[in-house]
Amino acid sequence: MTEPRLFLRLDLTSRVRLGPGKIRLLEAIEREGSISAAGRALKMSYRRAWLLIDELNSYFREPLVETQLGGTGGGKASVTALGRTVIRAYRAMEKDAEHMVRRRSAPLVRRLKAGR
Amino acid sequence: MTEPRLFLRLDLTSRVRLGPGKIRLLEAIEREGSISAAGRALKMSYRRAWLLIDELNSYFREPLVETQLGGTGGGKASVTALGRTVIRAYRAMEKDAEHMVRRRSAPLVRRLKAGR
Repeated sequence: MTEPRLFLRLDLTSRVRLGPGKIRLLEAIEREGSISAAGRALKMSYRRAWLLIDELNSYFREPLVETQLGGTGGGKASVTALGRTVIRAYRAMEKDAEHMVRRRSAPLVRRLKAGR
Repeated sequence: MTEPRLFLRLDLTSRVRLGPGKIRLLEAIEREGSISAAGRALKMSYRRAWLLIDELNSYFREPLVETQLGGTGGGKASVTALGRTVIRAYRAMEKDAEHMVRRRSAPLVRRLKAGR
């Protein structure tokens, strides 16, 4: 991981919060195809993953994740077009912010103690 | 406070972390002229304020805050030129990031549920 590193939490409103945890979970669902597999991949309990998705889905007019009741092997989940829009917008903000921060923090980094 | 709001934590290196708490403390010392008054203004214990300043001072080649032993009324503290540079750089990053985020998050905000 390159430095400096930036951690962004974005409050769209006081009750609508997007941060790295929720975005990583959306990405894992896209990759893994289910909430349980995404939770396992992130070492997050199924309950925790499910609650985060429920919260994300409650923010927007349409869901970010859709679930299908499972037969053998459990239910599937997929990220909707709006979910992908949210992931992309968040990652684009992060990238923009990283470029800006790298530029603006250069004078500070030069004045750090050696080994810091 | 306008929305969306952004919270930035900047790790200049893995051991050098700048976030809103430390920056607010530097600003309060600049305003109040002592660590104890700054702590009180931020409802932070003297010990906590002192530890944060000690940590900040350990990051850079020169201190961000200088203290003078106090006579009556306790010791004074002042923010150095480098301290002011750090405050300004952090606040400039935050402002840049807020503009960028406001622009990039507009399509998401439009798709929030009413009342969210």
